[in-house]
Amino acid sequence: MLSSNQIKHIQSLRMKKFRDQHGLFMAEGDKIVRELLGGPLEVDMLCALPEWISRWRAQIPKELTCHEVDQKTLGRLSTSQSPNQALAVVRQPAYELPSSFDKKDLILLLDTIQDPGNLGSIIRTADWFGIRHVLCSHNTADIYNPKVIQATMGSFIRTKVYYTDLARVMREHKGQMFFYGTFIDGKNVFDTAVRLPAAIVIGNESRGITEEIARFVDQRIGIPSGSHTDISGAESLNAGIAAGIMMACFRHMTG
Amino acid sequence: MLSSNQIKHIQSLRMKKFRDQHGLFMAEGDKIVRELLGGPLEVDMLCALPEWISRWRAQIPKELTCHEVDQKTLGRLSTSQSPNQALAVVRQPAYELPSSFDKKDLILLLDTIQDPGNLGSIIRTADWFGIRHVLCSHNTADIYNPKVIQATMGSFIRTKVYYTDLARVMREHKGQMFFYGTFIDGKNVFDTAVRLPAAIVIGNESRGITEEIARFVDQRIGIPSGSHTDISGAESLNAGIAAGIMMACFRHMTG
Repeated sequence: MLSSNQIKHIQSLRMKKFRDQHGLFMAEGDKIVRELLGGPLEVDMLCALPEWISRWRAQIPKELTCHEVDQKTLGRLSTSQSPNQALAVVRQPAYELPSSFDKKDLILLLDTIQDPGNLGSIIRTADWFGIRHVLCSHNTADIYNPKVIQATMGSFIRTKVYYTDLARVMREHKGQMFFYGTFIDGKNVFDTAVRLPAAIVIGNESRGITEEIARFVDQRIGIPSGSHTDISGAESLNAGIAAGIMMACFRHMTG
Repeated sequence: MLSSNQIKHIQSLRMKKFRDQHGLFMAEGDKIVRELLGGPLEVDMLCALPEWISRWRAQIPKELTCHEVDQKTLGRLSTSQSPNQALAVVRQPAYELPSSFDKKDLILLLDTIQDPGNLGSIIRTADWFGIRHVLCSHNTADIYNPKVIQATMGSFIRTKVYYTDLARVMREHKGQMFFYGTFIDGKNVFDTAVRLPAAIVIGNESRGITEEIARFVDQRIGIPSGSHTDISGAESLNAGIAAGIMMACFRHMTG
């Protein structure tokens, strides 16, 4: 049984202030929690339905605090509209930004991505393409926001996400890493000869890449629209979609 | 001033049942409403802040019912967390499915896309790439759901979205149009010679393309992951991202 204080503690992790204070976050759902149990992140506490616990007992480490909860309590803890069997409280990993990158590395730089769904989907896509490092500006949405965690579909477990001063990182790695910035009027990415190690820079949903970051971009790239048709179309692509197309092209061109 | 019945009427449009009953839907936000005023869709009613109406009076047709509302009333009508100046009630267009397609046509077939955000973002991306026809299975999310409308960022105005029996359409156009189905283990789209007229088929977020539809697919295509790296990655891409990458590749190859 969870005490009402424990319930409040878990609920408080919906807010960044308390996530940072405790160094914890929550992740939920049968599949994600099972992935967590076998993964590299430290699970602090588990809350699950009795039948889920019986079924997966062999996977649950003995030393892990594991609370049986009923459907109603799970609903109170959950941020999901359809709470799904299990919920974990996880310790925020302390990743240290590498001082140098591999010759074949492809990384992402996110400059002020604000929509949690976009951030989650970008991390999931990065994971699909084997991109291990995602560097975010300090004003990018919080990876530990429950909406971001859910949208990553478990990819937060494998992808290293850092919050850092992007301009400083770009200045420090200038010349060693090639910085490709995504711009609406950038050079067609399909016609761009890409070289590694590379970083793809994705800008804010409505304002794009900030001027401070744009100064360090080596090559401006873009995704041509179908405006050869006679009808004018959308003004822009969603930032998550643009990031996905860029990653697919880079992976194709650098094998 | 809006009567409480008018307010209830507009609020009822959040539900598909009432949208279908009235043949109407709502769209909101300064930019989208201004695009609507100059566009092909029939606006049934406009509700906006007094300052918005003064500013855009020249664009508002004289015969259009236009209600001044205060911020509080706009908040009651809106489904957005930050209601933005204006809201329109729009008549659902009655598009008739073309009996044949142009030689250079590229269209989309959506087989049970369920997430409103995904559907909206797919329509926005289609619009960017000049794709004019999006055919949805009957159990795909409703284009007139306010979340879908907002996610399209105005692209619902230009893109023709149909709800139809996809298997029947595919059977009827077999041989005249090439059907490319997106599968996790499909042939690398970057290595596929693409021919028009073509349809890209996108399947459900978790179950993919249904068997009934898969039978009519001419070529199974996919997006290779970065699994050449030593660490296993995400199991799949988000359906909106996968659709975006497919559209970008097809536009590039058939330019």
